[in-house]
Amino acid sequence: MGVESPAADVSSSEPAVPAEHPGVNDLFAVLAYGEISAFYRLAQEAALSPTLSGKVLAAKMAAAEMNHFRTLEVALAERGVDVYAAMDPFIRALDDYHASTDPSTWLESMVKFYVGDGIAADFYTEIAGSLPTEVGAVVRDVLAETGHSQFVVDEVRNAVQENRSERDRLTLWGRRLLGEAITQAQYVMAQRDDLTELVLSATGDLNGMAKLIERMQAGHAARMSALGL
Amino acid sequence: MGVESPAADVSSSEPAVPAEHPGVNDLFAVLAYGEISAFYRLAQEAALSPTLSGKVLAAKMAAAEMNHFRTLEVALAERGVDVYAAMDPFIRALDDYHASTDPSTWLESMVKFYVGDGIAADFYTEIAGSLPTEVGAVVRDVLAETGHSQFVVDEVRNAVQENRSERDRLTLWGRRLLGEAITQAQYVMAQRDDLTELVLSATGDLNGMAKLIERMQAGHAARMSALGL
Repeated sequence: MGVESPAADVSSSEPAVPAEHPGVNDLFAVLAYGEISAFYRLAQEAALSPTLSGKVLAAKMAAAEMNHFRTLEVALAERGVDVYAAMDPFIRALDDYHASTDPSTWLESMVKFYVGDGIAADFYTEIAGSLPTEVGAVVRDVLAETGHSQFVVDEVRNAVQENRSERDRLTLWGRRLLGEAITQAQYVMAQRDDLTELVLSATGDLNGMAKLIERMQAGHAARMSALGL
Repeated sequence: MGVESPAADVSSSEPAVPAEHPGVNDLFAVLAYGEISAFYRLAQEAALSPTLSGKVLAAKMAAAEMNHFRTLEVALAERGVDVYAAMDPFIRALDDYHASTDPSTWLESMVKFYVGDGIAADFYTEIAGSLPTEVGAVVRDVLAETGHSQFVVDEVRNAVQENRSERDRLTLWGRRLLGEAITQAQYVMAQRDDLTELVLSATGDLNGMAKLIERMQAGHAARMSALGL
């Protein structure tokens, strides 16, 4: 790990992380299991929706996750890696994250979707720029905006505008989501040396990683504000 | 309704059912709610799968249903019809079908998916030929083979090959699925004059409809046989 931050040098033609870096498989695999678990979470939480249109929206968001899973499955296969074997080390951390942040209302579910997806998207978008072109393209593809966020923002904003206790409750909920995400990310990093090395290479060094975390916290605050929280 | 069967006259350039037939909206709507309910059924039943690959397969099948829903939503919108209002009359019959055929095992779930989808596909494929080109194209598109059937056939065949009691149980289950599907189809037809008129126009007359039902029963028997049941 260097003293300078190669991640900042966007004009460089050499990516900070080579395509054959073993952490790339881990990166695709954790994204892939993230899509699977998000699919099942959304499908289950849709039962909380008071309307059929809410249920359909959740189903559409869930279907988009599976289309992304397929992209990652193909990308891993092209690297000679079986998606199931690759996902195995990440099942526990992601299942634990979802179990510890199980929404009890439709609004909690919507906030979790918006905030959780946002945290993940921030992280991957930040490091995508330091990845080899084809790897970064896969990451950007599966994190592409699926166009459902505005519905979520409207639902939550309308609900909290006239209900202060709901707003306070969802504000605490949003903080808890960030905290749990950080806890599980730390657990994964401690277990997976290749992935940790990839993130360090992509961010430059520990200092670059600290700045990345700061930017992610700022992104989280902006999203909470967009929700009226 | 004529004495002859226009459905049999495939060389005719005039479709038996005009594009503006009000039953077309019903046809798209019942298909659309069918996709939604199949999505949630598959997502819930995936919990019964003993393997992660089974869960992923169920999620992929569910995602394909939502892509089909989107096609129908667009087709209805182009006809000036809101998908939610249009689906409303069909919610009860489809919910009742699923409630009365709730699988208790992964194999029951797989048989239901394969057999239930097959019954629906037979019906819609039969009448698609009598529909105006653009309407028939939508119907064929949303019923297109999603390529997951072979997995289901293999799973079920392997499971029943060496287990006679499982085979007997699943054979009865398959019969019950057909019976419940017919019960709910009759309920829908009794409620929806436009849809019934469309099906009669598409099949030619009551005699044509009886022949359609015979062919659907033959198709069901062939699918059960493919499953080793």
